[in-house]
Amino acid sequence: MNAIDQVNLSSDGPNLSRIVAGTMTWGEWGIDYSASEIADMIGHCLDLGITSFDHADIYGHYSTEASFGHALNKLGTSVRAQMELITKCGIRLETNRRPENRLKSYDLSRDYIIASAEQSLKNLQTDYLDLFLLHRPSPLMNPAEIAEAFTHLEQSGKVRSFGVSNFTPSQFGLLSQAVTLVTNQVECHPLHPDCFYDGTFDQLLAANIRPMVWSPLGGAKYFKGESTTVLRLRDTVKTLAEKYGNVGEDVILLAWLLKHPVGAIPVVGTTKKERLTGTRLALDLELETQDWFAILEAAVGHEVA
Amino acid sequence: MNAIDQVNLSSDGPNLSRIVAGTMTWGEWGIDYSASEIADMIGHCLDLGITSFDHADIYGHYSTEASFGHALNKLGTSVRAQMELITKCGIRLETNRRPENRLKSYDLSRDYIIASAEQSLKNLQTDYLDLFLLHRPSPLMNPAEIAEAFTHLEQSGKVRSFGVSNFTPSQFGLLSQAVTLVTNQVECHPLHPDCFYDGTFDQLLAANIRPMVWSPLGGAKYFKGESTTVLRLRDTVKTLAEKYGNVGEDVILLAWLLKHPVGAIPVVGTTKKERLTGTRLALDLELETQDWFAILEAAVGHEVA
Amino acid sequence: MNAIDQVNLSSDGPNLSRIVAGTMTWGEWGIDYSASEIADMIGHCLDLGITSFDHADIYGHYSTEASFGHALNKLGTSVRAQMELITKCGIRLETNRRPENRLKSYDLSRDYIIASAEQSLKNLQTDYLDLFLLHRPSPLMNPAEIAEAFTHLEQSGKVRSFGVSNFTPSQFGLLSQAVTLVTNQVECHPLHPDCFYDGTFDQLLAANIRPMVWSPLGGAKYFKGESTTVLRLRDTVKTLAEKYGNVGEDVILLAWLLKHPVGAIPVVGTTKKERLTGTRLALDLELETQDWFAILEAAVGHEVA
Repeated sequence: MNAIDQVNLSSDGPNLSRIVAGTMTWGEWGIDYSASEIADMIGHCLDLGITSFDHADIYGHYSTEASFGHALNKLGTSVRAQMELITKCGIRLETNRRPENRLKSYDLSRDYIIASAEQSLKNLQTDYLDLFLLHRPSPLMNPAEIAEAFTHLEQSGKVRSFGVSNFTPSQFGLLSQAVTLVTNQVECHPLHPDCFYDGTFDQLLAANIRPMVWSPLGGAKYFKGESTTVLRLRDTVKTLAEKYGNVGEDVILLAWLLKHPVGAIPVVGTTKKERLTGTRLALDLELETQDWFAILEAAVGHEVA
Repeated sequence: MNAIDQVNLSSDGPNLSRIVAGTMTWGEWGIDYSASEIADMIGHCLDLGITSFDHADIYGHYSTEASFGHALNKLGTSVRAQMELITKCGIRLETNRRPENRLKSYDLSRDYIIASAEQSLKNLQTDYLDLFLLHRPSPLMNPAEIAEAFTHLEQSGKVRSFGVSNFTPSQFGLLSQAVTLVTNQVECHPLHPDCFYDGTFDQLLAANIRPMVWSPLGGAKYFKGESTTVLRLRDTVKTLAEKYGNVGEDVILLAWLLKHPVGAIPVVGTTKKERLTGTRLALDLELETQDWFAILEAAVGHEVA
Repeated sequence: MNAIDQVNLSSDGPNLSRIVAGTMTWGEWGIDYSASEIADMIGHCLDLGITSFDHADIYGHYSTEASFGHALNKLGTSVRAQMELITKCGIRLETNRRPENRLKSYDLSRDYIIASAEQSLKNLQTDYLDLFLLHRPSPLMNPAEIAEAFTHLEQSGKVRSFGVSNFTPSQFGLLSQAVTLVTNQVECHPLHPDCFYDGTFDQLLAANIRPMVWSPLGGAKYFKGESTTVLRLRDTVKTLAEKYGNVGEDVILLAWLLKHPVGAIPVVGTTKKERLTGTRLALDLELETQDWFAILEAAVGHEVA
């Protein structure tokens, strides 16, 4: 089986691997890997062709970037050039690591964005970010101020591309007037198909920009849900998993997302090596259109046509 | 009384009659006319100036187009040149006439669209469609692929104009980047005034494109509804029907729709000849603005200003 | 303390004072001032630098403009040149002052708009309006017809700028194709933050157009509400009022609105002189971002990040 390819997020770049590894559960918010375990996971990803790693400053209550940075340092500098590092800023969490944060809130001011990028570079022990995302839209965001921050970070060589996450089409359109955005990272899976209907994917398809998709498998909603809806959906997915060669449910769910013409880049956030390995099966698996709708129908609980 | 005029759907054409005859209830899904009865209805429409006929592949579980085609064949080829034929594709229905359809779903792939148009031509016993619509938006639709299908159908002379049905403004905007759309056929009547508020009519008015409107009279929701809302609405409509010269309720409902500046083309789906005849009254009837709002207020059940 | 400044609503003008006085409660719908009391209020506003006065034809059941006009007449013509007069049209109210109005409805026809502007000029005893707004969107509005009315009013020198009120982004976009709009006057306060999320402020920020904001303090919803939400919000606002130098709650609420980068112009509708005076404090008060979010969180009742 071949290594996973790279693709362009947009005509303004960057290249990412067709599957991105999400690190949210690698640290304190999940399995809490040691530096050598992270190094091992990085190696596994690179072997598969998964060269892009998705972070956020807040993961592990502001600790997971640094854990990843230690691992990177262990692996040596040549590894950095083989990978793309993505991180996000803008959410302030209440935590004793940030006593100045009085409530969960946003900050997308010029200085906060710049300081956050610089802190992420330090944490990750690297000189540049391949892609830097605004984690969530703030009702107070000022496109002109964000443009200043992005320009500063780009011109100083600290960040190569910029994007957003969880933006509405209106917010994405507004900010696109002021800066070049290469992606909108959003949630999408059969139990949350909103971006098919609310204009999010329409806008990106029209602009030839690929979304990144977080929780492409539905996460706990899918794997731990016990509602009638989830049980019905899992039943359908399992039946199709058998039909398509006894693959895993995760392979079917990923193939479901990949079938959409918007060309989404799944951010697979897992600590299971076999799940990362399995993504290659999904990339080669073309679901029949009627099977795609069977999954959607099971997830929404009524006819979808 | 004069014959009903023709108008342009958009600056890219086509001309349709100001009132379009809807055929959904002419076949198996309704009165199930014989070929000679359909021929008689066609004659009645043409006498009135209603030259445009609206179909969909699925009507009568994929049988009504063919019934119409038989009638057309009986009437002889000269009649075809006097009319505009419209049909739709993209919904797969479960029916033993299509055993390959495993669930109700959409297919807007290149090959499906082309094959569907070609089947409709065969059913209707004609060489070309004046207007071909995508029946509903599919979450999987790919503008580039749809453009290929439309280009093929246009260049081969099989279809003269293209449009959509039941598309949101975002979906219409997306597809308009790739192909020329001359209409969006949507539901609109006092009990379903959504397109006034959700941007659908705003978009079409801005682009100088007329919507076609299905169920312009509210269909069974209006004529068979027994809720307080419907009874109140019918009361208001009846009072106005008296005021405007003892016309039918259908005339008032149609005049209500025609008052909107978007210039909607009603698709009147009826097997009642007198209802088709009555549409001429509606075209000449200008409702006072306050009467228009009285109908809307009755339908929504509260002040609308 | 300095006088309140003037700012541009848009690149097409006009200049308004940074705070606008709303007159809705000055007449029959509120305190019902005599002409000399209104003259006194006008003088107080002008002293503060509040030179812009917001009306609507319907205030006081079509009577408040005329009361204001009498006061203006008392003050003498030189005062008119020191102020900007804004009014609105398009709502028909049932009242025995307008027996022709059979139900609450809209009228945005060419002739109605022109006649309404002319009546407002007569009521206000002035030759021109600085800004004329369509009070609410009508589902029947026709951009071409509105453009005719606006052109007529502009060319005859009766109105200098045009705008709208309570329009959705889609409606604003549609009408902007046909006429130059300099504002959209909308409701915005912590208990009604919709315009942050529904695209209204996104659109205006992108077009460099300032919204005017009615009910910037939340009106009775805030000051007379007794729900848990309102009590929690008032608690938060009071705490911050102490923190920022024992100012009034109204000052905090206004500072909250003014922090948004869209540059909203609050229409402060009050009969309390001290509230108008206090607006100067709000203009100088920069809320910390986390305090801004504390107010939003209290108002919506859950974390907002």
